[in-house]
Amino acid sequence: MRSTNIPLSNKAKSVIVTPPRKTIGILGGGQLGRMLAQAAAEFGYRCHIYAPAGDNPAFEVAAEATIGAYDDHAALARFAATVDVVTYEFENIPVPAVELLAATRPVFPDARALGVTQDRLAEKDFINGAGGRTAPYAAVDSLADAEAAMARLGLPLVLKTRRFGYDGKGQVIVREAASLAAAVTRLGTTGLIAEGFVPFEREVSVVLARGQDGAVAAYPLVENRHVDHILDETIAPAVADPALLEQARRVATGIITELQYVGILAVEMFVVGDAILVNELAPRVHNSGHWTMDACAVSQFEQHVRAICGLPLGDPRPHSRAVMKNLLGADIDRWREFLDEPGLCFHAYGKAEARPGRKMGHVTRIAPLSD
Amino acid sequence: MRSTNIPLSNKAKSVIVTPPRKTIGILGGGQLGRMLAQAAAEFGYRCHIYAPAGDNPAFEVAAEATIGAYDDHAALARFAATVDVVTYEFENIPVPAVELLAATRPVFPDARALGVTQDRLAEKDFINGAGGRTAPYAAVDSLADAEAAMARLGLPLVLKTRRFGYDGKGQVIVREAASLAAAVTRLGTTGLIAEGFVPFEREVSVVLARGQDGAVAAYPLVENRHVDHILDETIAPAVADPALLEQARRVATGIITELQYVGILAVEMFVVGDAILVNELAPRVHNSGHWTMDACAVSQFEQHVRAICGLPLGDPRPHSRAVMKNLLGADIDRWREFLDEPGLCFHAYGKAEARPGRKMGHVTRIAPLSD
Repeated sequence: MRSTNIPLSNKAKSVIVTPPRKTIGILGGGQLGRMLAQAAAEFGYRCHIYAPAGDNPAFEVAAEATIGAYDDHAALARFAATVDVVTYEFENIPVPAVELLAATRPVFPDARALGVTQDRLAEKDFINGAGGRTAPYAAVDSLADAEAAMARLGLPLVLKTRRFGYDGKGQVIVREAASLAAAVTRLGTTGLIAEGFVPFEREVSVVLARGQDGAVAAYPLVENRHVDHILDETIAPAVADPALLEQARRVATGIITELQYVGILAVEMFVVGDAILVNELAPRVHNSGHWTMDACAVSQFEQHVRAICGLPLGDPRPHSRAVMKNLLGADIDRWREFLDEPGLCFHAYGKAEARPGRKMGHVTRIAPLSD
Repeated sequence: MRSTNIPLSNKAKSVIVTPPRKTIGILGGGQLGRMLAQAAAEFGYRCHIYAPAGDNPAFEVAAEATIGAYDDHAALARFAATVDVVTYEFENIPVPAVELLAATRPVFPDARALGVTQDRLAEKDFINGAGGRTAPYAAVDSLADAEAAMARLGLPLVLKTRRFGYDGKGQVIVREAASLAAAVTRLGTTGLIAEGFVPFEREVSVVLARGQDGAVAAYPLVENRHVDHILDETIAPAVADPALLEQARRVATGIITELQYVGILAVEMFVVGDAILVNELAPRVHNSGHWTMDACAVSQFEQHVRAICGLPLGDPRPHSRAVMKNLLGADIDRWREFLDEPGLCFHAYGKAEARPGRKMGHVTRIAPLSD
């Protein structure tokens, strides 16, 4: 259950140190950007948030904010001129935006990490090449491709768009051959991926960081419960066989190292029997790492700041066990009940409107590790 | 070592609830205002900081900021119109400013608490009336008063200005009769207080909160080490005899209850033999409570927000032991060394200039309570 820093000097690159008091640029103004900005401020950094117009709760905790589109290259260039290092809070930033910024400022994670994780096909190819296993899969760019995939992978078959899917959006489970054509059409026919259905027992994840020097620090494996494809609860650390824990850590470490990634990466996995299958990668701080805010000396947000700023990674070991529960939509209206509960840690993201299914906050219950 | 909430319903007043998403106005833009704003943001509050021109690190983490003097009543009125509840980060806010704000908005702690704690004479009278003990003292408004005090209290004699002293400023220790007159003149002759010298063994403090409903929640007693009159280190919880812990808690609870105080109050005390003498009160979050950020589920900053917003107080019990060390002046330049230390919690306040003796940040080392 304990993870330690692993120096991997063969992958070491020169470290670009951005010391406290400098300015961190963050692309994206949602709750992840907000919590990143809060962690950065704990170290004395200034933050400048860049995000399109909308409800941007990160703006309220940052020294500076710019409203701009991710394809407004003039605005991005002006933003770059005001910051010392750049990161982002979500994976659907266009790669050209990151490349533009990277021309004048260090950007972590880099454009390659973003490119690989934005495309489910490239991501799965990468994972298998880095020593991880995934569900069997096939590229689908036509109905004929989908039929060939169904013949090879069987039913049920999971069809997904390769790009811009999240929280269950952009995917269909095909349970009978007759509904294949409609599903392919619905998702746009090209740019799809078919995946074999995995009868998994549990969903788990490893949230881990890699520094610019190649050091890796992994938080313990956690178990995630989803409701309607949205994370509902994270149990940390996961209760699992030591061999499984070690397998998950080894797979995640292999992936982050092979990707020469800098920052926090989330590796979502399925447990199938005694095997770990990687489901997907998130090149950013992650909902399944929120528990670290209350149960570790160093949260995932602080750890990300350490990595991108060229500071030493912190100790990822928890001081407590934790169960993190997301507050979706109107759940946030129950704030009074949560605040009444002794020892519960309450977090609200300051969003203006509590739409159904929208992540409005989370609560963490902690208990001694030894209980 | 464990403290619990004490409902004191006989003191209960009507509770003004300011729910998350509303705006908290904070007078003062230093590190305490900054950490208050950060804690408030965790609950989804917006913060509006009001402070005179200068280095105001709180501005960088708040949704809104106004530069204004504390005697600019027009600016204060405009500020009041934008916020839902008001608090302050330091005790030298002029009482008329707080009274003006209180005419249109709830202000916690109230003007009475501020008035009492701004005047060392009123404060000592209050403490003794509320069941606490202090060093013997006398008002001094002339050289004759000082001579009478010296005759009664003996040497060494501590002479202080009644108002606006902090971190050892505005005080002189008179060790021989011949230097009394010069000390009185140096401090301005009137508006002084003379205190008997206390040969204390240890300096301790209780940081505690009282809600609008009269509930009290005390963090455990801590021990404070000062260097050159500035807090250097806090050891939490203090290692002390159970009877002493209970005495300190009873005294602090009596004071906060009698003052009908709302928010976090710090009660600084001396241990003399088996007795507790109260040294002074700080009507605000306090440096000797910074350890709670890393060793408790509910920090003093969150607890203050809970109290002033009419939310239930949180559980003040720590999950870890802690030693907090202030980073003064150039200490902050050692950030790399601190970040290298596994498990150390590093906090920097984002101040522009590291002048000698200036509080630039702090570090907290935590360990299991049971070790």
